Amino acid sequence: MPTLKLTYFDFHGGRGEPARIALSIAGIEFEDVRVRFPEWAALKPLTPFGSIPTLEVDGEVLAHSNTINRYVGRLTGLYPEDALQAAFCDEAMDAIEEATALVSATMGIRDPIALKAAREALLEPLTRALRNIDRRLAARGDFLADGRLTVADLKAFVWLGDLASGRLDHIPANLCEEVAPHLHALKGRVADDPRVRGYHARVRGAAT
Amino acid sequence: MPTLKLTYFDFHGGRGEPARIALSIAGIEFEDVRVRFPEWAALKPLTPFGSIPTLEVDGEVLAHSNTINRYVGRLTGLYPEDALQAAFCDEAMDAIEEATALVSATMGIRDPIALKAAREALLEPLTRALRNIDRRLAARGDFLADGRLTVADLKAFVWLGDLASGRLDHIPANLCEEVAPHLHALKGRVADDPRVRGYHARVRGAAT
Repeated sequence: MPTLKLTYFDFHGGRGEPARIALSIAGIEFEDVRVRFPEWAALKPLTPFGSIPTLEVDGEVLAHSNTINRYVGRLTGLYPEDALQAAFCDEAMDAIEEATALVSATMGIRDPIALKAAREALLEPLTRALRNIDRRLAARGDFLADGRLTVADLKAFVWLGDLASGRLDHIPANLCEEVAPHLHALKGRVADDPRVRGYHARVRGAAT
Repeated sequence: MPTLKLTYFDFHGGRGEPARIALSIAGIEFEDVRVRFPEWAALKPLTPFGSIPTLEVDGEVLAHSNTINRYVGRLTGLYPEDALQAAFCDEAMDAIEEATALVSATMGIRDPIALKAAREALLEPLTRALRNIDRRLAARGDFLADGRLTVADLKAFVWLGDLASGRLDHIPANLCEEVAPHLHALKGRVADDPRVRGYHARVRGAAT
């Protein structure tokens, strides 16, 4: 197994959390580097694309969250072997990443009126993204690919958790529940997976 | 081999062209459906995510260009087998897609003054993206991954061709040449690949 160092912000959400969950539930050892927001400005220029997560693999630094999710998915058995199922997994991750980028683009807006306008303008494309992914999930069964938990479901789980967290002002926390019932059910299914429950129990234990 | 139908706009560029080149140079048969711009409004709501390219694989429709590139890369042998080299290939495609999305977001702007402002605002992030990918390429050798032509190089080739095409008002056609010399050399290397030359010769032949 390669030596792994995953670097991401110090919260349980966002683009780096799916890889943390995947590695943790597979019992694969990794250095879990957590960046506090005030540290980010100094670290940013040292990253390959000015972004985290990054995953260092035996000294080689990988960037871009879905690249990392896929690599980690292979290490952990949480990525399909079959090419078409792998494409279903990839497509869901690409679709979620596209929707994530919309929200990310509003994260730096400081002016409250501009933030409100930007977030309200997101509701229509976010709703569309949720509905589109929901329709794919409905056609595919209980999981986004391969009939079992993959990194795509972990990415969906973390994304939907972020949307429902109440941390995103002007995005109704119940948006997914309202417009994407299959995704909402998937979120519950992932949360109830014994491996994911074990991860959250360990995380909560470590935090106390 | 599955029955394949690739649907994309009727020009030699953009998000659908890398898969067309990959399938063509590998000699894999596919239905090459070309959408003219006036037809797009009627087709859009029938696609899974309101976007093309789509790739139909034995009746299953895949969306999102890098998902399609990766699936096609596997079929054609133009995607690395090794997990880390595959991640290098994925990372380059993700980085190019991120830069492509910046430009795409300006494609619908009709007002000339607003378009100029939006395109000029792109120069800094586009330059940064080119430089970042250029640095990765420089570290990796003649190709973006696996020491040979992969779908990542085809994506870079098409993207750099679009940037240099003169079709994007207010983006200097020589931007890549100016700021990303290794990528500029890669573009020439891909264009000179005998398989890619053969593809372009066939395309030009078909157009006359």
